[in-house]
Amino acid sequence: MPDFPVAIDPADWVCPLPLRETRRIVLGHGGGGVLSEELIENLFLPAFGGARGAARDSALLDVAGGRIALTTDSYVVQPLFFPGGNIGDLAVNGTINDLACSGAQPVALTAGFILEEGLELDVLGAVAETMGKAAANAGVNIVTGDTKVVAKGGADQIFVNTAGVGVVPPGVHIDPERARPGDHIIVSGNLGEHGVAIMSVREGIDFGTVVTTDSTPLHRLVAAMLDAAGSAVHVLRDPTRGGLVASVVEIARAASVGIELELAKIPIPETVSSACSFLGLDPLQVANEGKVVAFVDPCSSEAALDAMRSRPEGADAAIIGRVVAEHPGMVVGRTAFGTTQVIERQLGEQLPRIC
Amino acid sequence: MPDFPVAIDPADWVCPLPLRETRRIVLGHGGGGVLSEELIENLFLPAFGGARGAARDSALLDVAGGRIALTTDSYVVQPLFFPGGNIGDLAVNGTINDLACSGAQPVALTAGFILEEGLELDVLGAVAETMGKAAANAGVNIVTGDTKVVAKGGADQIFVNTAGVGVVPPGVHIDPERARPGDHIIVSGNLGEHGVAIMSVREGIDFGTVVTTDSTPLHRLVAAMLDAAGSAVHVLRDPTRGGLVASVVEIARAASVGIELELAKIPIPETVSSACSFLGLDPLQVANEGKVVAFVDPCSSEAALDAMRSRPEGADAAIIGRVVAEHPGMVVGRTAFGTTQVIERQLGEQLPRIC
Repeated sequence: MPDFPVAIDPADWVCPLPLRETRRIVLGHGGGGVLSEELIENLFLPAFGGARGAARDSALLDVAGGRIALTTDSYVVQPLFFPGGNIGDLAVNGTINDLACSGAQPVALTAGFILEEGLELDVLGAVAETMGKAAANAGVNIVTGDTKVVAKGGADQIFVNTAGVGVVPPGVHIDPERARPGDHIIVSGNLGEHGVAIMSVREGIDFGTVVTTDSTPLHRLVAAMLDAAGSAVHVLRDPTRGGLVASVVEIARAASVGIELELAKIPIPETVSSACSFLGLDPLQVANEGKVVAFVDPCSSEAALDAMRSRPEGADAAIIGRVVAEHPGMVVGRTAFGTTQVIERQLGEQLPRIC
Repeated sequence: MPDFPVAIDPADWVCPLPLRETRRIVLGHGGGGVLSEELIENLFLPAFGGARGAARDSALLDVAGGRIALTTDSYVVQPLFFPGGNIGDLAVNGTINDLACSGAQPVALTAGFILEEGLELDVLGAVAETMGKAAANAGVNIVTGDTKVVAKGGADQIFVNTAGVGVVPPGVHIDPERARPGDHIIVSGNLGEHGVAIMSVREGIDFGTVVTTDSTPLHRLVAAMLDAAGSAVHVLRDPTRGGLVASVVEIARAASVGIELELAKIPIPETVSSACSFLGLDPLQVANEGKVVAFVDPCSSEAALDAMRSRPEGADAAIIGRVVAEHPGMVVGRTAFGTTQVIERQLGEQLPRIC
């Protein structure tokens, strides 16, 4: 349930009268009529910091000529609320991070909601308010949106889609195919926290210490890295679904290079590793929502690392491996004892509905 | 069920082996691992005309400086397949039309899927293939996407989100607030077909003649109007949910002007009006997916009308009313007998899950 009290004054909402009492979503909130307008004006616009333009079908943005990045993600996480966040900031930060990992600075976001009939307005209000705060925190506006409602049982509470547009600064060229032998692989901090946070509430397991999601926007961290290391930053990837392993395997395949990870150097908090052994999960395959994996030319990797560590969201950054010319497309992990093992992605997923 | 046979060769899909037999979506298709990749490479990329870039988190686009338009819409229509189309082309055309009604020429689309576990791959393939064809027909690329899978019962088959980016040509300024007294109101063709097409299959009603959806992209029609009438085109709106009435009431309120509609001049096919009386629907409140309502300065309205009629999707365009200084925010309908009535939006919706 929401920790975020949202001010929905029933007196601001018109008819049908029972709505004021039930404070729940009805099919008509997705119908494009008076109820839809009311939902936008009384809930979304206040939550999103309310330019009237948000009620239009398209938002207009002024951009300088050049390259823009465009991305989309749908969020179906369960439960909606978990330690350190909810589906709302997850959706905002996730899309910002997809833009950031293209080297783009985010400009604007969209918000598309699919709601289940009967959803409490307070729950939707709490999610929307969190989205507005996350967007404001990142300095990005939610500029347009859409809401559909399906009958009870046709969806599970709230699904959120966020699409985003960003501008790629001149000279920035981030691409998985740019990974090349010699590159150092840097991760911006501790892995596994998001997945463990979700699983702990979902399974009702108390690990002693509360693990909170790492969901956070990364565009400022990326900007700092690019300032420090410029075109030596070859690849950026946020290790979400499938975790670190999915990210590095995909990059190894895209660039036809080999990757060696120093397993002992990968920062995994004690709480995460003990929770993972309890749950039978591999922390390297667990989703993160506020981390970036960077492939950087070795000449500039220390500069990039320093830049990352200078920011709170990169304080625990570490070099965890390197790109090699051998075994293209394959990722190998080296243990502290010198033994090696091939690291492969999972077929499906360890944790459904993690984001 | 799909009219569109899609070539999914089970041999292209790896394990688990039973998947080849069941040909259904499993949770792992949304997990970011091997199964996700397979879905992208074997289904989405071939359907969308397959640039490998579609598999990245963000797409990069080159744009000239100026104004861009950004929009999003989620689609939850039921049934997925209906006369004249399916959820796929509806999603592509709908987002193109939102961009077009901002005066923008569409540049790129995103595609976000939320799938229910157990969905047949052939159904998803047919939807994706239709999206690819609709995008190609409109000359727009689907450049990036996302897929999430929820457990059986957590969603209803397929939900599609499409976001879109377009470029607004210099000098074009379309805005609901630009409606001004004297403007002629033009509709690009027959109203009510989409809603009646959906209802006819949903309710299993045979109206004698099959009414097909009017779903079509409108950006070329809009470009022709802007060529012919330039800045005399003040407002554009696609009358989707809530139909013509919702569109004109919103514009009357946004611009604080009155609107008079000549009810007898509004083009409604006989099949639509008889189906609507049978179903107890108001054809002016039924959703359209391939129509535009334009508010044009009277000096240029004939030029705009001629330009619309010169294109197949505007062949039945008609001037249906005008903007007046009286009764700001209110829409009045005038019958052929000279009587008038106030026209108001509905509270909710006549037809849930129409788009």
